[in-house]
Amino acid sequence: MSHSPSAAPHFDSAFRARLFDLFSWRRDVRRFRAEPLPLGMLERFIEIACLAPSVGLSQPWRFVIVGDSGRRQAVMDNFESCNADALLSIRYAAPKLAGLREAPCHLAVFADHATVVGRGLGQRTMPETADYSTVRAVFSIWLAARAEGVGMGWVSILDPVIIGAILDVPRDWRFIGYFCLGYPQAEDDSPELERLGWEQRQPVGGCILRR
Amino acid sequence: MSHSPSAAPHFDSAFRARLFDLFSWRRDVRRFRAEPLPLGMLERFIEIACLAPSVGLSQPWRFVIVGDSGRRQAVMDNFESCNADALLSIRYAAPKLAGLREAPCHLAVFADHATVVGRGLGQRTMPETADYSTVRAVFSIWLAARAEGVGMGWVSILDPVIIGAILDVPRDWRFIGYFCLGYPQAEDDSPELERLGWEQRQPVGGCILRR
Repeated sequence: MSHSPSAAPHFDSAFRARLFDLFSWRRDVRRFRAEPLPLGMLERFIEIACLAPSVGLSQPWRFVIVGDSGRRQAVMDNFESCNADALLSIRYAAPKLAGLREAPCHLAVFADHATVVGRGLGQRTMPETADYSTVRAVFSIWLAARAEGVGMGWVSILDPVIIGAILDVPRDWRFIGYFCLGYPQAEDDSPELERLGWEQRQPVGGCILRR
Repeated sequence: MSHSPSAAPHFDSAFRARLFDLFSWRRDVRRFRAEPLPLGMLERFIEIACLAPSVGLSQPWRFVIVGDSGRRQAVMDNFESCNADALLSIRYAAPKLAGLREAPCHLAVFADHATVVGRGLGQRTMPETADYSTVRAVFSIWLAARAEGVGMGWVSILDPVIIGAILDVPRDWRFIGYFCLGYPQAEDDSPELERLGWEQRQPVGGCILRR
């Protein structure tokens, strides 16, 4: 093969300690400052997202940067409606569940189920791997953003079909999630839901089985 | 609130450049050296995985460390069978699709759909967010492993129901993926499927829409 990679990087213990800090201090942010992100920053994060592993190198991720105020409002309306239903059904003492109104940046992410890129490799028994590939791309953005002091929040209390219609995307695109990005009002190393007493982190040992 | 976080870390440009290297040099590894991982390393990676964001703090991830040679063989048999079917249907000139035989470490990951942790918050309109949360945990392992020179490969050519049966896990656990971990035979900054001519990386601009 003519391919010759550049020299592989060595990641030292100082880097790994910072990486651990990054995982620890990454939050699902709901409280944003209004200050906009620097021009081109989101596109840079999306470039990083495209380095994520995808099944059969299918790269099914599709990123929709939502800037139109009418569409943003329609998404917020859908959130309000779905959240009202959820409040009725699970009766939670609503923590703040979205930062849609304040966040300077809205990003919707889809998985293209019609792409021929990757030629279907690896998806036959588990077609959901296209969605999982897209989730890895999203999580790459989350980490890259946090490393620049930018917070991200995942909004899942939405109707996937309605969001697809609001954003006028192809029917074969499956909605993965809607994200707010912006500078957070505060930084923390524990989840807000834990601080609010909604739920606690579970002991790691409890999620490991040996077979 | 009595909660007082420790001082938030600042991630400088040197760290961010290394983080970019980490994303660039993370590979979906198929070729492993037989050398085992140091004792306790996988458990450390799982601790990092548990820092991933989960819907409603539900922490649905379940990790099954597969050490039993009979079960490993049964998983490999299932891979061979599913892969033979796939070869018939999509006629690919089989690249190496799994490192199951050589990898010192086998890890199966599931999402517990019956957990009450998180009390269902955020999952009503999109129950698949439990699976997506688990995928983020998996990708955390992938990155943490790469930072220690350890490679990871995702095996998706498997039958989820049969894998659940082989590993004797609760029925409410949904199979997310089966992973090989070990030291890679080689390091590279381009995907093996690209080097083999299977597929190419797509231009980033093509996956961005503005609405």
